[in-house]
Amino acid sequence: MNVPFGERLAQAVKRTGTCAVVGLDPHLSMLPSVLRDGFAHKRGEAYREGAAEAVLEFNRMVIESLVDVVPAVKPQFAFYEELGWRGWRVLEETCRLSREAGLMVIADAKRGDISSTGAAYARAIVDTEGPIGADAVTLNPWMGVDTLEPFLGSVEEHGAGLFVLVRTTNPGSAFLQQYGSPPAAQLVADAVADAGAASVGSQGLSSIGAVMGANSPADAQQLRARMPSAWFLVPGVGAQGGNPRDALAGTRPDGLGCVVNSSRGVLYPRKGETDPDPQVAIRDRIHAHAERFSLR
Amino acid sequence: MNVPFGERLAQAVKRTGTCAVVGLDPHLSMLPSVLRDGFAHKRGEAYREGAAEAVLEFNRMVIESLVDVVPAVKPQFAFYEELGWRGWRVLEETCRLSREAGLMVIADAKRGDISSTGAAYARAIVDTEGPIGADAVTLNPWMGVDTLEPFLGSVEEHGAGLFVLVRTTNPGSAFLQQYGSPPAAQLVADAVADAGAASVGSQGLSSIGAVMGANSPADAQQLRARMPSAWFLVPGVGAQGGNPRDALAGTRPDGLGCVVNSSRGVLYPRKGETDPDPQVAIRDRIHAHAERFSLR
Repeated sequence: MNVPFGERLAQAVKRTGTCAVVGLDPHLSMLPSVLRDGFAHKRGEAYREGAAEAVLEFNRMVIESLVDVVPAVKPQFAFYEELGWRGWRVLEETCRLSREAGLMVIADAKRGDISSTGAAYARAIVDTEGPIGADAVTLNPWMGVDTLEPFLGSVEEHGAGLFVLVRTTNPGSAFLQQYGSPPAAQLVADAVADAGAASVGSQGLSSIGAVMGANSPADAQQLRARMPSAWFLVPGVGAQGGNPRDALAGTRPDGLGCVVNSSRGVLYPRKGETDPDPQVAIRDRIHAHAERFSLR
Repeated sequence: MNVPFGERLAQAVKRTGTCAVVGLDPHLSMLPSVLRDGFAHKRGEAYREGAAEAVLEFNRMVIESLVDVVPAVKPQFAFYEELGWRGWRVLEETCRLSREAGLMVIADAKRGDISSTGAAYARAIVDTEGPIGADAVTLNPWMGVDTLEPFLGSVEEHGAGLFVLVRTTNPGSAFLQQYGSPPAAQLVADAVADAGAASVGSQGLSSIGAVMGANSPADAQQLRARMPSAWFLVPGVGAQGGNPRDALAGTRPDGLGCVVNSSRGVLYPRKGETDPDPQVAIRDRIHAHAERFSLR
């Protein structure tokens, strides 16, 4: 049996001294021009083939700069699926390279399905012998708590982690998440706490976590009270923007409990700017991100 | 500009005379033994390679039996992703073969993301020049109405359709979908009606539909009143079980408005039984499914 995810993430955060994680989101139009020039003029299948090669090269460079600097990476599946099966092959390779580099992998797939379908997604994404073999996956709870069940075997057997969408940062997020009294997000938070009870380890952290938007620190604190053992995955913090104190509002008294993601802010220059040397610039932004969220 | 999805589906239902659709869900353990024997003893990458070949062969056979019998197929992404990039390649090929056979393709991907991420999923799944090129996709609304927005361009430009998860059939579905007063599902239904208003065609049907579980006919009727122009995608009706009248509870006075899916019930024999000749048995079950939901 593998060490439970909650424990492993605590170890990785302590080892690297930061709760910053980096999103591996290959926005094709923002890749360094030396890579973009190889495929941008192509079309259809040839475009996808060239872009997939460029993305893998880009990710290799990024992963190299992440080793021992951050605890985990978070590939966003959409940007790979855009490239079809070639994108999925690069995604698998990216996850393998990340794991080999000692980085934990949080698969940002936002899957949400039940029964045999949910089980197939679990085998696809978090089974250690499956094609992706991620350490954790993001899940969408709209279909009910049944969406967690097919993954609980992976939590126990493979030491997998789950991050359930509790509160997101987008403008329309309140539509369902804050609907009703108490808000629906609280029901989901309670379900996360319940499902995580069985995997709380010696650090007091479980393997079932929550996606917790960084733009609502009051929410984060209130929901922390309902999920004292959950890891919070905090999205949407740019390297240049965002308020670190807000992002960390859900931190526990022991200083653990949140990992804060940055994708575009770390991987790409600001709008209208270019990186004279992308490798150097990305490394610098990664270090700044890690420093901003270092454990004090 | 392509003909809007809602119109195209109406034409396909009328042409085939049935509102039955078939789920292309390759449950690996249920494939005919002649196909299973080629990969079941293998492991890891070799297993996935063998299984992917078997799935493609199985799907070819199924698609052949579907031509002119049903209007659409609904591949469930989970069962392909389980096979990694090889599964995605088979999924792409399956969608291509289906389209070439004159079948509409409803991608059961249940994606739900926003902004540039949602846009990448739209390019992946419903862009006519993308790798999947489906006619429609299922979407999860938990993150808010913003999850529809990145797809609306595809609705307009590519004639794509969306099926938003309004009510599902699983035991835990009420947890969020029926939460609050009025139930959250009603809010989603109203959002579906709003988003679909722009694409209502000459048949009075729009391109933004709803996934509507077949086990709550009262719900279906009530929600039909809120979404008079929406196509309902009704899942979870087995060839042997399920009550056709319940499944069709959301049908409009003109006899249109619902498509009813069967996957396992059509593709595989009942538990404990085997098909002496799978091709014949599958064809017979497909015809029975089409007949059960024929337009009267």
